[in-house]
Amino acid sequence: MGTDAVRVAVLGASGYAGGELVRLLGAHPGVALTFLGANQAAGRTLGEVHPHLGATAVGGARLRPVEAEAIVDEADAVLSALPHGASGELLPPLLDAGLRVVDLAGDFRLPASAYPAWYGFDHPAPERLADAVYGLPELFGDAIREAALVANPGCYPTPVILGLAPLLAAGWLEPGPVIVDGKTGLSGAGRRAEEATTYAASQDSVRPYRVPLHQHTPEMERGLELATGRGVTVLFTPHLVPTVRGVLTTCYVPLAGDADTERLTATLADAYAGAPFVRVLPAGEMVDSKRVRGTNVVELQAIADPRTATAIVVGAVDNLVKGAAGQAIQNLDLMYGFDAAATLPRLAVYP
Amino acid sequence: MGTDAVRVAVLGASGYAGGELVRLLGAHPGVALTFLGANQAAGRTLGEVHPHLGATAVGGARLRPVEAEAIVDEADAVLSALPHGASGELLPPLLDAGLRVVDLAGDFRLPASAYPAWYGFDHPAPERLADAVYGLPELFGDAIREAALVANPGCYPTPVILGLAPLLAAGWLEPGPVIVDGKTGLSGAGRRAEEATTYAASQDSVRPYRVPLHQHTPEMERGLELATGRGVTVLFTPHLVPTVRGVLTTCYVPLAGDADTERLTATLADAYAGAPFVRVLPAGEMVDSKRVRGTNVVELQAIADPRTATAIVVGAVDNLVKGAAGQAIQNLDLMYGFDAAATLPRLAVYP
Amino acid sequence: MGTDAVRVAVLGASGYAGGELVRLLGAHPGVALTFLGANQAAGRTLGEVHPHLGATAVGGARLRPVEAEAIVDEADAVLSALPHGASGELLPPLLDAGLRVVDLAGDFRLPASAYPAWYGFDHPAPERLADAVYGLPELFGDAIREAALVANPGCYPTPVILGLAPLLAAGWLEPGPVIVDGKTGLSGAGRRAEEATTYAASQDSVRPYRVPLHQHTPEMERGLELATGRGVTVLFTPHLVPTVRGVLTTCYVPLAGDADTERLTATLADAYAGAPFVRVLPAGEMVDSKRVRGTNVVELQAIADPRTATAIVVGAVDNLVKGAAGQAIQNLDLMYGFDAAATLPRLAVYP
Amino acid sequence: MGTDAVRVAVLGASGYAGGELVRLLGAHPGVALTFLGANQAAGRTLGEVHPHLGATAVGGARLRPVEAEAIVDEADAVLSALPHGASGELLPPLLDAGLRVVDLAGDFRLPASAYPAWYGFDHPAPERLADAVYGLPELFGDAIREAALVANPGCYPTPVILGLAPLLAAGWLEPGPVIVDGKTGLSGAGRRAEEATTYAASQDSVRPYRVPLHQHTPEMERGLELATGRGVTVLFTPHLVPTVRGVLTTCYVPLAGDADTERLTATLADAYAGAPFVRVLPAGEMVDSKRVRGTNVVELQAIADPRTATAIVVGAVDNLVKGAAGQAIQNLDLMYGFDAAATLPRLAVYP
Repeated sequence: MGTDAVRVAVLGASGYAGGELVRLLGAHPGVALTFLGANQAAGRTLGEVHPHLGATAVGGARLRPVEAEAIVDEADAVLSALPHGASGELLPPLLDAGLRVVDLAGDFRLPASAYPAWYGFDHPAPERLADAVYGLPELFGDAIREAALVANPGCYPTPVILGLAPLLAAGWLEPGPVIVDGKTGLSGAGRRAEEATTYAASQDSVRPYRVPLHQHTPEMERGLELATGRGVTVLFTPHLVPTVRGVLTTCYVPLAGDADTERLTATLADAYAGAPFVRVLPAGEMVDSKRVRGTNVVELQAIADPRTATAIVVGAVDNLVKGAAGQAIQNLDLMYGFDAAATLPRLAVYP
Repeated sequence: MGTDAVRVAVLGASGYAGGELVRLLGAHPGVALTFLGANQAAGRTLGEVHPHLGATAVGGARLRPVEAEAIVDEADAVLSALPHGASGELLPPLLDAGLRVVDLAGDFRLPASAYPAWYGFDHPAPERLADAVYGLPELFGDAIREAALVANPGCYPTPVILGLAPLLAAGWLEPGPVIVDGKTGLSGAGRRAEEATTYAASQDSVRPYRVPLHQHTPEMERGLELATGRGVTVLFTPHLVPTVRGVLTTCYVPLAGDADTERLTATLADAYAGAPFVRVLPAGEMVDSKRVRGTNVVELQAIADPRTATAIVVGAVDNLVKGAAGQAIQNLDLMYGFDAAATLPRLAVYP
Repeated sequence: MGTDAVRVAVLGASGYAGGELVRLLGAHPGVALTFLGANQAAGRTLGEVHPHLGATAVGGARLRPVEAEAIVDEADAVLSALPHGASGELLPPLLDAGLRVVDLAGDFRLPASAYPAWYGFDHPAPERLADAVYGLPELFGDAIREAALVANPGCYPTPVILGLAPLLAAGWLEPGPVIVDGKTGLSGAGRRAEEATTYAASQDSVRPYRVPLHQHTPEMERGLELATGRGVTVLFTPHLVPTVRGVLTTCYVPLAGDADTERLTATLADAYAGAPFVRVLPAGEMVDSKRVRGTNVVELQAIADPRTATAIVVGAVDNLVKGAAGQAIQNLDLMYGFDAAATLPRLAVYP
Repeated sequence: MGTDAVRVAVLGASGYAGGELVRLLGAHPGVALTFLGANQAAGRTLGEVHPHLGATAVGGARLRPVEAEAIVDEADAVLSALPHGASGELLPPLLDAGLRVVDLAGDFRLPASAYPAWYGFDHPAPERLADAVYGLPELFGDAIREAALVANPGCYPTPVILGLAPLLAAGWLEPGPVIVDGKTGLSGAGRRAEEATTYAASQDSVRPYRVPLHQHTPEMERGLELATGRGVTVLFTPHLVPTVRGVLTTCYVPLAGDADTERLTATLADAYAGAPFVRVLPAGEMVDSKRVRGTNVVELQAIADPRTATAIVVGAVDNLVKGAAGQAIQNLDLMYGFDAAATLPRLAVYP
C-alpha cells in the first residue's frame, strides 16, 4: 500500500455487508483500511466477529466504537453499513470535516417527506438530502465522481432500475404501473437470528413479506425518475426463498409501441456496452442468480410478450456485493479514480 | 378393504406424482389398488422404483405395461400420471369400456385448438374434450361428481384459479391483464435427472423458465372463465427456486371499485367457508409454502394496494399433492362419494 | 373419541417435539388431548404457536402453565417435552398422583452419578431413577408395558443402540471402543434462534459440535449394557449438516470372530423380524435419512470390513419422530395396549 | 502476461474441476492459458460449457480434442482434470516431450498393484508410477519443485493426511486402525446428472456410499506412509450430505502415550507454522466447511479424548479447490517458482 492510499473507515463492520466490505477492500490496491467501527461488537477483534476474515491483514484489529472524532482523524473516506436510521445523525459531522462518504443504509436515498411513511422516522438532516448522489455507477457516474455523499442503492432497486431505465428512456415502456416481484435469500435479512430465519423454518419455504409496503418501493420510483425524467408507479412484492445470497427481480411493464424481445435486448445491450459489471443476456438464455453470487455483476434480460403487450424484465445481483458492499466500493472507485473492473470480482465460484 | 372397494389403476406409477398416488391411496379406506402401470419401469417392483414405499401393501407388486385390456379387466377407475401427450390416445378406450378416469396430465384441460401452440402436438381425440370436466373440486364439484373423465388441474393453475375466481366473480377485479409470478421447487421438474436439476446447479439458484410460453397460461385463462364466465388475459412467468415441494403464486390484478384488503379477504373466506382444504389467511399473516408441504391444503390471501389500485393474491400448494396426486384423489372421492376430508392429509410435517 | 379414551397431557407443547406430539396424537384413535402445557408460551393458542397445527381439533386451545394440580385433574398420562432439567422436579408429584409418564428429556435416562458431568446439574430426585424404564420399545417392550415412568431415548442413541445391541449380544462385536459418528439436521438444535442455526450460517456448512462430551455418550453406553449385559465404551462425535430432520449414525466397532456382512445383516433382520418400525437393509443398499423423514421408522444396516476387522453399523431416524415424539407415542401405545403400527406413520413424504 | 508466461493446457475443462482451473488460472499473473481440452464437449466454447466463465479472457475459446501433438506444440505445462483412467495412457507422451504435468485424476497416486482392486483397471503405464510425486505441497514441497509428474491428491485424503501426518510422526498416535468418517457435498459427484444427485433426491438426505471400498482408502494409507514412514491401516466411510462444496473428515485414532488436546494442537500448529493455506484451530473452536468454501485453505483441529484414549482429528477443504484445482495450481506454483499465497484465494465468500 503506497503512502498515498486512501484511508478508509468501515462502519458497521460486524454485519454481513460490513464483512463483505472488509473482504473486498482487503484486496483493493489503492485503499488502506484504517478504522473498523461497530456498535455492539466494539471491542472484539475482526477475526472474532468474522472468523472467515481472521486471515486478512486487519484480522486482528479491534472493532471500535463509532465516534466521529476518531474517524475524522484516521480516515479520508467512510463506507457506512450501519443500520437504517443511524446515518442521518452520524454522517453530517463527517461530511463537514471533509470526509467523503458512501452510505449503504437507506438514510439518504429518498426525499425527506418519504421517511415517516416508508422508514418510520423523521429524517434528522433533511438539508443534506439534496447533496446526496444516488449511487448507481452505471447511470449516475458523473455525479458520483464529484460527490461528497453517495447514497448506495438497496439490493432490490439495483437490478430493477438498471433493467428498466434504458427501456423507459427509449420509449419502449409505458410508465406503469410497474409490477416488481422480488425474490431474495436469507442473508438479505441481516445477521441477526430470529425464528423465521433459522434453517429449520426456511428450508422448503417460499414466503412473501412486507406486502405492499417495502421501503424499496419509493426508491425504485425515484431512481427511475432520476434516470429517465419519467414518473412511474411501482408495486413491489418481495419474497423470501431458501438461498443465502442473490436477489432476482421480475418486472412486468406495459409495452409501448412495437417493441419486441430483440429490440428490448438491443437497447439494454447498447446502454451497457462498456459497463464491466452488466451482463445482458441474449434471447433464449435465462438469468440465474447463482451465476452472480460473490460478484459485482448484474445479469439482465428483457422479453416482450405480444399476447399481453407486456415487457418482462428480469435482473439478478448478489445482494451483499452488487446489492451492497461491492457497489459501495464501485462508487468509492469512481470517487477516487480507481478502475473498478480491477478491484471487484466478476466471476462466481460455481457451482 | 371391503368387497365393494373401488378398484383403482394408477398409471405412471414410477414418477413422483405416481408415487404420491400410491402413498395416499394406500391409506384410503374405500379403494383397492389393483393395477400399477408404467412404461420404462414396467417389470420392476414398486419397492424397487420407490424405495420409500416398500412397506406399503403393494410394495412388492410389479409395475405392469400400460395395456388397456388388462386395465379394463382389473379396475373400475383410473388415475393416470403418465406424461403429457400419452393420455389422448390411451384414455378413450378405457372410457368406452365404462371406466371413470382422472387424468393428471394436461391432455384434457384445454380446447383442441390450444394444443399445437402450448403443448406442441395436435390433439388425437378432440371429440372427447367437451366431456372432460376440469377437476377443481372447490369450484366444479357438481360436474365432477357426475364426470366420466376429469382433467386434473396443473400445479400452478390450482392456487391461481382458486384465489382469483371468487374475487373476479364478485366484481372486485378487472379482467386483466392478470400477471402471475410463480415459484416452484425441483420436484416440479419431475423425476428425470438433468444438469439443471442437480443439487449442485440448484442450490442458491433462482431462475425464470419457459418465459412467456408456459402451458399453464391458457389453463389459467380457461379455468377462470369456466368459473366466472368472464374472459381474462393471463401473463404467467414461472421461476425455479431451491425447494423440493411447493408452488407459490403471486397474482397482480387491477382492482375494480372500492375493494380493500378486508373485503377481498372476506370474499375469499365466504367462498371457501365449508372447504376442508382451503385456508384463507387473515390480513397480516403471509402464505408460506412450507406449511402446506405434504398436504392437500391451499393457502390463500388477498391484499389490496390502494397506491397502485392493484390486488395482490397469493396462493400456495404442494405441487405433488393439491397440485397433482392429492387433488386427483379428491376428485375420485367426489366421483365415488367418499369424504375427502377423511382421506387426504391436512397437516404438514413441520419444520 | 370414546368415553374411555386415555386423557393425555402434552407438556412443552410449543417446541418442535411438542408440536409433533400434538400432530401425531391428533390422529390417534385412543387418546384425548386434554392438556397442553408450556412455559413462556402459556396463554397463546396452539395455532398461534404452531400455525401449521391450527386446523387440528385442539388448534384453538390455549397453552397453559405447567401446574401439577391441573394436570393431575385432567390427564391420565403425561408426555413431557420440557427442556432437560425440568422433569426431575416436575414429574415425581405427577407419578405420586398415579399418572403414567413418558419423559422426552434426558432427566431419567442415566444413573444419578452421571448428571453433574454430562448434564451439568445434580439430579433432584435420584430415588426415582431406579423405577424409570428406558423407552426403546423394540428392546424393552415388556418393562415399558408395566412402567409408570418411561425415559424416552435421545435421538442419537436410538439408531445406535438398535443397530449395535443385537450384534453385541450375538457376539459379533468386541465391546469397544465403539466409535459413533453422528450427523444431524438443524431441527435437532430445537426451535430457539441463534446465529449458528440461521439459514445463512448453515447452508453449505458441515461442523462437529460438543466434542467429545455430548450427553448422549453415556446414554449409548448404558442402553447397550441394559440390552446386552455387556459393558462397552463409546466415543461419540456429533456433526451438524444442512438438513432439517434426520439423524444418521455411523458406528465403527471391532469385529469378533468370523463375522461377515451377511451374518451381521441376518442377525439384525432376525432381531427385528416382527418390529413394524425397523427396516434392516440388505447388503448393497445404503441407509438414507430422507426415507425416514416424518416417520417412526429406523433404517439399519451392517457391513463387515475384513481389511480392518471392523463392523460399520449405520442407522437413521427422524430425530423428531422415532428420535422423540413418535417413539414417545410408541411407548404410550405399549403402556395402554394400543397397536403402534396403526397409530404412527411408516411412509415418508418423498421426495 | 509477459512473453515468458508459462503456457498451460487444461484438460477436462468442461467438468467442475476444469472450470475451477480456468477460473483460478485466469487470475494467475504468471500463466497463459493456451489450450483447453475436452472430450465430449470439444467444439463448444468455454462460455457455452461454463456460462459463469463467459467473461474470462478465454471465455470465447473453443474446447479442443485432447490430442497430444497439439498440446505439446502449445503448452509447457499440463493440468489434467480428465476422468480416472484416461491419464495413464495420455500423459506419458506429454512427459516424454518434456512437458511438466499435474494429474488431478487418481491414475498416478497408487502403486500399480492397487489399481485392479481399487480403481477397476490394470495400470497402463506402471513404469511411470515411480517418478510421480504425490502432490501435497505442505508435506512434499521439495520433491514437487523438481517433479515432471505430480499426482494431485484426492479431496478426502488432503485433510486426512495433513491432519494426521504430523501427529503420527510425533508419536502421538498409534498406527491404527485409523477410522475416517467423511462427509462431502454434491459437487463431489461431478457434473453428470443422475437421479441420486438431483436436488429433489438430495435435500434433507444423508447417505453413506461406496462402503467400505472407496478408492481414497489406499491413497490415505500410502500418503501417510510417505509422509511419516509408518504403515497405517485406514477404514474410510464417505457420506453424501446436502451441500455443494466442502469435504469434512473426522478421523479417530488410538492415542499413544500422554497426548492431550493442547499437545496435539501445538504439534499441528508447529508443523504448519509457515503454511499459508493451513489454519489450525485452537481448542474450543470447531472446523466449519463453509469457512473454506471457494478457498485453498484447509482447516484442521485435533482433540484428545482421555475417556477412550482416542484422538479426534477433523479437517475441511473445498473439494474443488484445495481438494482439486487449487491444490493443482499450488503444485504448479511450486514447480515454476510462483508464490501460491499470491495466486490462490484464502478468504471465503461468507455467508
